[in-house]
Amino acid sequence: MLDLSLPLGLRDPTPDHSAHLAELASRLHQVFASFGYRRLLLPTLERLAVVERGLSAAALDGVLKFVEPGSGEVVAIRPDITPQIARLWAARPDALPDPARLCYDGPVLRVREARAGRPREVHQAGVELLGAGGPEADAEALVVLRRSLDRAGLSEAVLEVGHARFAAEVLAAARLPGPERAAAEEALSRKDEAALAASARRGRGPTAARDALPALAGLYGEGALSRARALARGVPGAARALRELEAGLGLARRRRVREVEVDLGEVRGLGYYTGITFAGYAPGAGAAVASGGRYDALLARFGRPGPAIGFAVDLEYATQALERREGSRGRGRTARARRAPRR
Amino acid sequence: MLDLSLPLGLRDPTPDHSAHLAELASRLHQVFASFGYRRLLLPTLERLAVVERGLSAAALDGVLKFVEPGSGEVVAIRPDITPQIARLWAARPDALPDPARLCYDGPVLRVREARAGRPREVHQAGVELLGAGGPEADAEALVVLRRSLDRAGLSEAVLEVGHARFAAEVLAAARLPGPERAAAEEALSRKDEAALAASARRGRGPTAARDALPALAGLYGEGALSRARALARGVPGAARALRELEAGLGLARRRRVREVEVDLGEVRGLGYYTGITFAGYAPGAGAAVASGGRYDALLARFGRPGPAIGFAVDLEYATQALERREGSRGRGRTARARRAPRR
Repeated sequence: MLDLSLPLGLRDPTPDHSAHLAELASRLHQVFASFGYRRLLLPTLERLAVVERGLSAAALDGVLKFVEPGSGEVVAIRPDITPQIARLWAARPDALPDPARLCYDGPVLRVREARAGRPREVHQAGVELLGAGGPEADAEALVVLRRSLDRAGLSEAVLEVGHARFAAEVLAAARLPGPERAAAEEALSRKDEAALAASARRGRGPTAARDALPALAGLYGEGALSRARALARGVPGAARALRELEAGLGLARRRRVREVEVDLGEVRGLGYYTGITFAGYAPGAGAAVASGGRYDALLARFGRPGPAIGFAVDLEYATQALERREGSRGRGRTARARRAPRR
Repeated sequence: MLDLSLPLGLRDPTPDHSAHLAELASRLHQVFASFGYRRLLLPTLERLAVVERGLSAAALDGVLKFVEPGSGEVVAIRPDITPQIARLWAARPDALPDPARLCYDGPVLRVREARAGRPREVHQAGVELLGAGGPEADAEALVVLRRSLDRAGLSEAVLEVGHARFAAEVLAAARLPGPERAAAEEALSRKDEAALAASARRGRGPTAARDALPALAGLYGEGALSRARALARGVPGAARALRELEAGLGLARRRRVREVEVDLGEVRGLGYYTGITFAGYAPGAGAAVASGGRYDALLARFGRPGPAIGFAVDLEYATQALERREGSRGRGRTARARRAPRR
């Protein structure tokens, strides 16, 4: 008797759920196109060397790879589409304008996110704005993401905005001894102010930076920006990061980007991001429905430097939010999703 | 210096070409939906045992497979979507109606079709009608395919229609000695009437069948059906196949399926097909832009028997035809594509 199950903890699709995913992708592409983003159909496989160049060592553990029998090359099933676009940007300067507004949808496969270490296939749709830096481009990404979530039917989704360097600059300025640094990052991910204060006492940096460290745990929600401003006065790198964030966010707000919250206490899981970061959270979704940010160092790794920003909508989680709302209409809303940057 | 090339002979996408493929897929889904076909988003990977059950041994050589590290299972990147749908039909009878009208689009990866033995990624969009047999279902598939090609902008594409059993029944009835059988199939694929006549002389079957064998080489184009009728008089199995073909084709023609040609001389490369087969050929495309047929034995291999028919449009070749026509408008048409059933 043939075992009819899928490999890898993958799930059988149903026509209803497939239709929801496809309809969502179609709506997102309407929004992307309305902002001038052009679609790319990217291949399922890349050479592992290309994938390695685009991911952190930790993320590489989750990549499915094998030896392609015809060439003997090690190839990978793409775990992320952004490095594919970075490769193309470098490989085909003739084929892409500068700046380039590009979008995509399709599945990616990763081991790291699944229960029991089994891979999970994630359908994503996203945009990349390559060759454009500064607050205008940051604001554009936020505007496109907000309109995308609205068009998807997720206007209640909250955009959580941060900056990849803010907490990292405070941590660096506090000059913690080696092992203490990892402990502090861990404490920060738990928002554990007491543990951060204990770490700070062992730092060799200026008082302002060591005083700022425990306060990172509270840099979210109401008043987070003004608290961050006060805290960043003694940490020049953090102050620069904050100015970048506020400039982009200010422009986005003027373009009617609503439902924004700030979280500046993140330092982990930010991958290749170097500037503003954002994630969308919707009631009923098991994790972020969208995530992205600025990644000004990634393109250079492929040999054609340039600033860049982008985001991806997780079609599975976004559809989960829509389906649960449909299912629970009148029964009140489910709890807010876990907040953890993810892409 | 990082090598920025793609693995496997894959090609870099451009925004223009990607937009053409996406637009084509979107048009096809409009047609599929208008006939009540519901979309399935199927996974990139299947367990190899499932893929093996759905393909011939020859086709299996072209499958990319690897050991999934989490489970130790051998998994395959799907080389074909039809066996995935057959698996789902058997695994989830609760989730699919009977008959079920299903459609899909997405990439498949195969080694066998590429130059120098390197894999090629093929974007397909297609339909499957599961649980429905007989001429009505055959005609429906032909109608949906014709409307799909028309909507794609390929109304000049020719539908070449055949039957998986016609030539095979003649060959079987001629009762050729073992090695002669392979030689005759080879001669048939070259349309080599003299070689077929030589084979026929060594057959031990009835005269009618041996006389019919060389005539198979000419069973295409103008008058093919009436020649086939004459020829099938002495070969009952071929006569049954021909009646099936004519019944489905007759209904399809009444539903205004135009640009049909008959080719009954094929016996190779028909994979899992058991009844009517069809392929679409458009000027400018390097190979068939669509292919499909009836496969009444495949579903049983997965444990839930039933008749079935379907087809897939090759988005790459169909787009090639559209792009070349766009490029050569006013310069006359390119030569008719090579005719070789393929899916």
